[in-house]
Amino acid sequence: MIVILKHQATQEQIADLKQYFMDQGLRMDETRGDHATVWCLLGDTSRIDADLIANLDAVDAVRRIQEPFMKASRSYHPEDTVVDCGGVQVGGGLFQMIAGPCSVETEEQIITIAKAVKAAGATLLRGGAFKPRTSPYTFQGLQADGLRLLKLAKRETGMPIVSEIMDAAHLDLFEDVDVIQVGARNMQNFELLKALSHTGKPILLKRGLANTIQEWLMSAEYLIAGGNDQVILCERGIRTFEAVTRNTLDLTSIPVLKEKTHLPVLVDPSHATGAARLVKPMAMAATASGADGLMIEVHNDPMNALCDGAQSVTPEQFADIVRRVNAIRDVVKG
Amino acid sequence: MIVILKHQATQEQIADLKQYFMDQGLRMDETRGDHATVWCLLGDTSRIDADLIANLDAVDAVRRIQEPFMKASRSYHPEDTVVDCGGVQVGGGLFQMIAGPCSVETEEQIITIAKAVKAAGATLLRGGAFKPRTSPYTFQGLQADGLRLLKLAKRETGMPIVSEIMDAAHLDLFEDVDVIQVGARNMQNFELLKALSHTGKPILLKRGLANTIQEWLMSAEYLIAGGNDQVILCERGIRTFEAVTRNTLDLTSIPVLKEKTHLPVLVDPSHATGAARLVKPMAMAATASGADGLMIEVHNDPMNALCDGAQSVTPEQFADIVRRVNAIRDVVKG
Amino acid sequence: MIVILKHQATQEQIADLKQYFMDQGLRMDETRGDHATVWCLLGDTSRIDADLIANLDAVDAVRRIQEPFMKASRSYHPEDTVVDCGGVQVGGGLFQMIAGPCSVETEEQIITIAKAVKAAGATLLRGGAFKPRTSPYTFQGLQADGLRLLKLAKRETGMPIVSEIMDAAHLDLFEDVDVIQVGARNMQNFELLKALSHTGKPILLKRGLANTIQEWLMSAEYLIAGGNDQVILCERGIRTFEAVTRNTLDLTSIPVLKEKTHLPVLVDPSHATGAARLVKPMAMAATASGADGLMIEVHNDPMNALCDGAQSVTPEQFADIVRRVNAIRDVVKG
Amino acid sequence: MIVILKHQATQEQIADLKQYFMDQGLRMDETRGDHATVWCLLGDTSRIDADLIANLDAVDAVRRIQEPFMKASRSYHPEDTVVDCGGVQVGGGLFQMIAGPCSVETEEQIITIAKAVKAAGATLLRGGAFKPRTSPYTFQGLQADGLRLLKLAKRETGMPIVSEIMDAAHLDLFEDVDVIQVGARNMQNFELLKALSHTGKPILLKRGLANTIQEWLMSAEYLIAGGNDQVILCERGIRTFEAVTRNTLDLTSIPVLKEKTHLPVLVDPSHATGAARLVKPMAMAATASGADGLMIEVHNDPMNALCDGAQSVTPEQFADIVRRVNAIRDVVKG
Repeated sequence: MIVILKHQATQEQIADLKQYFMDQGLRMDETRGDHATVWCLLGDTSRIDADLIANLDAVDAVRRIQEPFMKASRSYHPEDTVVDCGGVQVGGGLFQMIAGPCSVETEEQIITIAKAVKAAGATLLRGGAFKPRTSPYTFQGLQADGLRLLKLAKRETGMPIVSEIMDAAHLDLFEDVDVIQVGARNMQNFELLKALSHTGKPILLKRGLANTIQEWLMSAEYLIAGGNDQVILCERGIRTFEAVTRNTLDLTSIPVLKEKTHLPVLVDPSHATGAARLVKPMAMAATASGADGLMIEVHNDPMNALCDGAQSVTPEQFADIVRRVNAIRDVVKG
Repeated sequence: MIVILKHQATQEQIADLKQYFMDQGLRMDETRGDHATVWCLLGDTSRIDADLIANLDAVDAVRRIQEPFMKASRSYHPEDTVVDCGGVQVGGGLFQMIAGPCSVETEEQIITIAKAVKAAGATLLRGGAFKPRTSPYTFQGLQADGLRLLKLAKRETGMPIVSEIMDAAHLDLFEDVDVIQVGARNMQNFELLKALSHTGKPILLKRGLANTIQEWLMSAEYLIAGGNDQVILCERGIRTFEAVTRNTLDLTSIPVLKEKTHLPVLVDPSHATGAARLVKPMAMAATASGADGLMIEVHNDPMNALCDGAQSVTPEQFADIVRRVNAIRDVVKG
Repeated sequence: MIVILKHQATQEQIADLKQYFMDQGLRMDETRGDHATVWCLLGDTSRIDADLIANLDAVDAVRRIQEPFMKASRSYHPEDTVVDCGGVQVGGGLFQMIAGPCSVETEEQIITIAKAVKAAGATLLRGGAFKPRTSPYTFQGLQADGLRLLKLAKRETGMPIVSEIMDAAHLDLFEDVDVIQVGARNMQNFELLKALSHTGKPILLKRGLANTIQEWLMSAEYLIAGGNDQVILCERGIRTFEAVTRNTLDLTSIPVLKEKTHLPVLVDPSHATGAARLVKPMAMAATASGADGLMIEVHNDPMNALCDGAQSVTPEQFADIVRRVNAIRDVVKG
Repeated sequence: MIVILKHQATQEQIADLKQYFMDQGLRMDETRGDHATVWCLLGDTSRIDADLIANLDAVDAVRRIQEPFMKASRSYHPEDTVVDCGGVQVGGGLFQMIAGPCSVETEEQIITIAKAVKAAGATLLRGGAFKPRTSPYTFQGLQADGLRLLKLAKRETGMPIVSEIMDAAHLDLFEDVDVIQVGARNMQNFELLKALSHTGKPILLKRGLANTIQEWLMSAEYLIAGGNDQVILCERGIRTFEAVTRNTLDLTSIPVLKEKTHLPVLVDPSHATGAARLVKPMAMAATASGADGLMIEVHNDPMNALCDGAQSVTPEQFADIVRRVNAIRDVVKG
């Protein structure tokens, strides 16, 4: 940790702060510049509250040397993590396409869509059973019954399945779900993260709407620190002033994450844009930016979908996306 | 709901959409302008997915006439709601000061601070037992033991208590807590909101870092729709590009909320600014903007606080804040 | 224009507002719904201040039917505009690569780089002479002399040149510059836009850091309304809470713009990311999203560049980018 | 400047970088920690491009010790600057109210309003002659004629006048204007700032919609570095995701600025909120936060204002605001 003292810091303030750091078992190297004095603290600074020190009268600024995430960082674990999702592997150069409806609605709906997306090239099936909805008055998902139907579609097609959890109390219901999704609004639901860290399940961790890349990796750290290193990140757009699209898809986060972490990174262009006609260009762009896979909402009858029909592409549109995404993969690897 | 059709919409598209709305049991008034055709839909449009319609080729834009929240809105409930917090009332002109440490640390700490803030003018005592921390490696709160100590301080001072819940599974522990706080990161934890809507407890609902005022009122709607109308809103800053303060305190939200909703609105200048020296001016500004109360972190020894010492004021500083805030209340009411 | 009246609007307020609109020469269609009355105003509403009406006590909301930009819109001009940049054409399927240093530094530097980027596949040469710098103490560009050297490089290589203008008073100096760039900070410098609208020069209009797509098109409208329809848009990132990259590159703006406007749209991944190692993936992603071209900073000696070395790629890196971008173009078109 | 090296930096990279800094005439103190090596650079680092160094493979992070603004900083100039605005002084405890219409429209209008705001307690008169409008099709101000009428109102009432400049080419017209305003969109129009730095006129520098406090002070630094230290800052809201108000008024910037700079700081609640009914609470809140004055739009007939009627208060409302603001000033000072 580096502490930059203010030019106006008094001798007494400096002596007090020096004593405080020594009481915490730290040593310090001091550099006196023309404009400021700088301390480099040595020892275990993890318990020091950097904000507290930064707000002292005598202190101009504080900077941590180490990133606050460790097990999620590439310096701790240089090789790419490959996550096994019920037999389908993602990361380390293995690219996967997750597809399916926003919500599971009926047995016929989910099985029809599952077969269609498999035929078009999807390797994992998504389907929502527990739905986080902004309004208490809209469809909240089929819940346990939705998971039952999703498992039927898995049996029918052989595709591993991905579904979102909203409360640790529902964990028992997710026993046969291959990948458990944590939605954007729960990225910092730390109690849920702790509960999931004690399972052996792959976790698909979406980025929160207002969360920095560092906070996102800290949430991954919660999972890994608790014992679960099967973590997949998923960029799905952040909230900005631009309202013409639902969110602003931050594709630069992909190469940045590939530097900072060993975890695989997917992109969800459906939620990011909120509009079916924008899914294709953004799926292609996400692939070109270096993503390890995509998650795309597909519905056979978007006009009558119970949820998010506006952003669902048809199976035919999905097949065209798969074809172009594969061609772009060749350019990225080539 | 108003639907504006595109100039280029084909006759077939228009006929299909008309049929779709009639199938949903809706009627429509049509206005043909020089540049566009506008439909005003009549009937129960609550099940129509506005985003879906807005993304159709034939449609230029869709606008709902009604706000999506109802029970939280002032047009539904014109009088101010007054929330009873263990005998202390907030809202409808009754202004309250919540104060106390970020975290409960020891019996001596919480009782000392409780007595000090009461003497200085606080009417409710806050203290964190379950702490949402960005890092899994930092102090996570004393949990059940923290609530036990907080209740001791309540018995000692007679002040009603406020503490944050992080998981519905902990609800039993909050039986003697007077006001249950939902933190910013859980504002859209809908499973938690549903569980809290079935209690009779006052809920202090903080604004999420990236949440609009409308989304915030929709979360209040979850609570009221489930049966709990004892809801207090608390502005605590939003996330913007400005990094010099931890968050950007959105004080204009206060008069806007007083128009849109009947619920009381507090402000938390401690979390908003993240810096003790900024708490006083922002507490005064919040009061001047029309807030129904404040929530302020106070610690007797900020340098050794286990959590958020940087933003904690001392009891002496708090007393000065109370004095000035009361004087500003007189100007607001006068 | 659509006006939604509040449920609580009084008869007198309604009568006054009706009279106001009639005085402005407008007619209105009225729809009375269960919850609100809606007026569709007919006639020339362009002089009505929508914000003023929306803030009246009797009014719930106002919505314009027409986009406020006209000549920049695709509905006004359905075919793609192709802009001729000194013999090199961009738009309408014609993709171009602009490359060169942030600043022109010396004759040797600009000519060396010009030859290198031409060999690598660039079709236009960029070079800054007037530099908008945040600090008054940093290098402000060679100014008139920089333009002179840039023209030497044009003569030497035959490449048309692009350079930024900061003040209409400098227009004379830009006579032989093929494309005049308006930087992000000047996107709403309306006096500069008016002056440029009276030239016949192609204008490269960068998006402002905090500007919506609609505001950006309104600035293009200033240029076209004044008589200059040779406008090229350039996305270069917007300002958000994420600080790990300099800006957040909003690639979804590309397909959105292709719908809304007929103007060509480029992307500048150098300024968007601020880091040379991120330029390649984001150049590829921008191409995949449907951009009509790229603008990339290239320097033969980034460590000793006088400006923005951190984001400059070497000519060798640029050649690799061109190769991959061309391969992605094939996928987009195919 | 502090440079933190990466753990994985090679000996060769470190040697090269050391040589680079020595070539720039710098010395360095080195601290080797358990996780990283830290260099404190000594000497004139102002020409070092921190972004360039931060993006090198061997470097983890770079931090400047000094703020990049100097003459605007309070450590350079500890006493409050008091700016003389045609005989009315602002700063150093002297609080002023600027009021008047968004645009000068007619002689009768400006003189009527000038007399009314003077009677209500305003000390400076504002009135726009050159108007930055998002659309080329809306009223652009009376320009030279507007300034002529504004000067008539000054002669009539004795109030010093404030008006916005949009282009340095208009400077001659502002000779008898007491305070020249630089609007939000021109905060980083560096050519305009340079031109204004050579005048002796007080400059009211508004904060840009997407500009940080540091960038704002850098723009003030442009003015002071060029020779004009008569600078007044004016907070007017920043752009965020919240769309219910036009901008988000960042009142925490006021106490932050009072620490960082000696310049007076005003607040404009009219542009920040865009709604007349929100001006009163936010004017009061701004005063409570420690502002040195306010700038408020007042119009005698808001419904028929040519510009921004929605945010204009009447003279009667303004008089009530003045009364309450003065009472809050007493609490702040008390």
